[in-house]
Amino acid sequence: MNINTYIDKHRQRFIDELVELLKIPSVSADPNFKKEVLLTADAVKINLEAAGCDKVEICETPGNPIVYGEKIIDESLPTVLVYGHYDVQPPDPLDLWSSPPFDPVIKKTEIHPEGAIFARGACDDKGQMYMHVKALEIMIQNDELPCNVKFMIEGEEEVGSVSLEWYLEHNQDKLTNDVVLISDTGMISKEVPSITTGLRGLSYVEVEVESSNRDLHSGLYGGAVANPINILSKMIASLHDDDNHITIPGFYDKVDVLSELEREKMAEAPFDLEEYKNHIGINDVHGENGYSTNERNSIRPALDVNGIWGGYTGEGAKTVIPSKAFAKISMRLVPNQDWREITDLFKTHFENIAPKSVKVKVTPHHGGQGYVTPIDSIEYKAADLAFHDVFGKAAVPQRSGGSIPIVSLFEKYLQSKTVLMGFGLNSDAIHSPNEHFGIWNYLKGIETIPYFYKHFTKLYTETNH
Amino acid sequence: MNINTYIDKHRQRFIDELVELLKIPSVSADPNFKKEVLLTADAVKINLEAAGCDKVEICETPGNPIVYGEKIIDESLPTVLVYGHYDVQPPDPLDLWSSPPFDPVIKKTEIHPEGAIFARGACDDKGQMYMHVKALEIMIQNDELPCNVKFMIEGEEEVGSVSLEWYLEHNQDKLTNDVVLISDTGMISKEVPSITTGLRGLSYVEVEVESSNRDLHSGLYGGAVANPINILSKMIASLHDDDNHITIPGFYDKVDVLSELEREKMAEAPFDLEEYKNHIGINDVHGENGYSTNERNSIRPALDVNGIWGGYTGEGAKTVIPSKAFAKISMRLVPNQDWREITDLFKTHFENIAPKSVKVKVTPHHGGQGYVTPIDSIEYKAADLAFHDVFGKAAVPQRSGGSIPIVSLFEKYLQSKTVLMGFGLNSDAIHSPNEHFGIWNYLKGIETIPYFYKHFTKLYTETNH
Repeated sequence: MNINTYIDKHRQRFIDELVELLKIPSVSADPNFKKEVLLTADAVKINLEAAGCDKVEICETPGNPIVYGEKIIDESLPTVLVYGHYDVQPPDPLDLWSSPPFDPVIKKTEIHPEGAIFARGACDDKGQMYMHVKALEIMIQNDELPCNVKFMIEGEEEVGSVSLEWYLEHNQDKLTNDVVLISDTGMISKEVPSITTGLRGLSYVEVEVESSNRDLHSGLYGGAVANPINILSKMIASLHDDDNHITIPGFYDKVDVLSELEREKMAEAPFDLEEYKNHIGINDVHGENGYSTNERNSIRPALDVNGIWGGYTGEGAKTVIPSKAFAKISMRLVPNQDWREITDLFKTHFENIAPKSVKVKVTPHHGGQGYVTPIDSIEYKAADLAFHDVFGKAAVPQRSGGSIPIVSLFEKYLQSKTVLMGFGLNSDAIHSPNEHFGIWNYLKGIETIPYFYKHFTKLYTETNH
Repeated sequence: MNINTYIDKHRQRFIDELVELLKIPSVSADPNFKKEVLLTADAVKINLEAAGCDKVEICETPGNPIVYGEKIIDESLPTVLVYGHYDVQPPDPLDLWSSPPFDPVIKKTEIHPEGAIFARGACDDKGQMYMHVKALEIMIQNDELPCNVKFMIEGEEEVGSVSLEWYLEHNQDKLTNDVVLISDTGMISKEVPSITTGLRGLSYVEVEVESSNRDLHSGLYGGAVANPINILSKMIASLHDDDNHITIPGFYDKVDVLSELEREKMAEAPFDLEEYKNHIGINDVHGENGYSTNERNSIRPALDVNGIWGGYTGEGAKTVIPSKAFAKISMRLVPNQDWREITDLFKTHFENIAPKSVKVKVTPHHGGQGYVTPIDSIEYKAADLAFHDVFGKAAVPQRSGGSIPIVSLFEKYLQSKTVLMGFGLNSDAIHSPNEHFGIWNYLKGIETIPYFYKHFTKLYTETNH
């Protein structure tokens, strides 16, 4: 394969094209960016056509459109379905960005001496999605595409992929495939390629605690009426016990418990606690008693408040007891925990623990199931071989704490297995200010992907499909 | 006295002048309103001059200016020092106002069939302060001012009167007086005049809990690192025990404990729990075990979160573990609790209960001492007689849960006793959206005040001062 030559020749254009895509603020969580979301779908369509897809469509859904593209070379050959998303997380808090989130700049960092692109979505997931577009271009231009390919790039991943399920259900024939390929995860380090074999599920809810019908003067009423912020704090606090176990009745009932052997194997993955702490600037880690840091954020569920607000939050002081207080709360789930069941358990429990003096409202936002992939499948082997070809070493299987809820939807509606080849790094600050994606990682991803196609097609054919 | 005739004749002008004053948004908590704060001081000066003060000055302080005015008729007669404030609370949340907070409108309500002025500061304290200006006008125009009068109207009451102490310390000679007269409290009802004999003190602090040096992805880090919102909630929750006692060590050490007799007497004041609950729309009251609602908000201290914020608070969902979470917390104190000591106790305790995984910062905002006035003094008797003249019945002594921290400063720097004649009602929604002040109350205040001057001068002279 003549991949490296092609990449070297078109390096600058590959970067420039991604930069253009990153300039459009496709924030799916904020309805004010609806227009930009649609513009981004258009841009993805144009890029898929330019890369060589035969048929590209912007498919309407109940929410944001899904961009679909395909290149079918031979019905008898296997089909790879590439999934990615063109929407991005909100960029807040804006004042912590060292450069504007939608004005991409390339800066060198310690980990990225070749430079990294700083922009919201640089890694998650515009950059990683676009690696697949450029890999397709290379395979087509080099006349080395070994199988059929379909692209399905959605615009609601950061708000729970609400329309994707509808789309999968209504397009099962069109989307038939032999493997789903996704780059929306990370690798352990630039020296240690890895394949994500487990993802956590998610249940995201919003809660409201209401006391009086209006804000009250904290002098005249303080001590005699329920303060919804104090009550909300107490309710949130009670969701964890002293061992940092989650206290919702039934929450752990279906949690997949790993064997000692599995946990020992996990503990062998390279991990430096001091480096971890220094990197994110924390005094100490904090989590469920009896589990290591890597276990706490992958094989164990978690409950986090993602946002809280109520009362006077401006400058200075206001002596008020607000009428209402609010929080956004998400739970990361592990395989076998059903997100809808957990959402119900949360709702029931949260309503139950409210004192009589307040009214409580729980509004589910979205959710998704956890997932574990086998490591003896041909898609895993193909990914492993591809990494070996490019990095000179086998990939490390790793379970991630994040969620790509759609992985279990692919299984449900398309009977597809998914392979997660991530090229991002933990230090890329996805979902945070100053998100970035190393140019080395971006190009390495483009380089590795065609090898996956090659090995997957070969293994698929050999196993007599 | 020809008070009623004068009020009837000038009724509309008295209302119009107050409405003009209410149009200026003198929000002391927000530096963006600095210009309007200064404009309001100017307006107060002009009104004091128009009412008949001989010498009116805008006195510079380290913060907002204090408007001083005086009318000295005879050095041998007693002097009443009127205190009030021209600054107002922030109007947030704006969307809960039925009319704009600085665009006063007169509307009838069930309690105010004669109409009430709806505007921020209508009652607290522009309206109540302006009653004194108009009462002075009446006494001067009717040639019935029986003693000397001084006005001291400040612009930082809603942010803790930070410059007032400086002003008192530097102007002790100028401010000599025989009684301080304040209308910045309420009366039990339109039928039950009352004199406030106790006020709670205040300690107001802001807290910050910091975990990581940047926002983190709640999937990748959730469960393994301290979430500052969860931690802050837990810390806030722990500030009250199951009996709703405050858990800060030493907090109750100096609390003035009332005798059973005193509590029995308090319990005789008219109070309807169902009406109280219905009025503010709460399911149930909530407070310290072992105390009644009226005790909880007057003779017992309280701790309330006045504002909380952190993480993503916009529309939709963001899966973030924020770097920091914040809260504004105030404690209402009772006589003998020293606010500086309580602030220190809070700070030490809050820092002590922080887990090792977070950094905590406590910033004191402001505070003030609690206060109890005797009811056998000549100023209390003069107020009681004035209410009797106008309402036909004695006033009920009542302890309020609010704070006017400056009352104890007057004692310290001017050796002055204070009398608190309030004309506001609990339903006036001070510090809340739709604050208002009944026109009946406003005019009744103007009518009652001159009788206080008359009785106070008489009692003062009789007791051979």
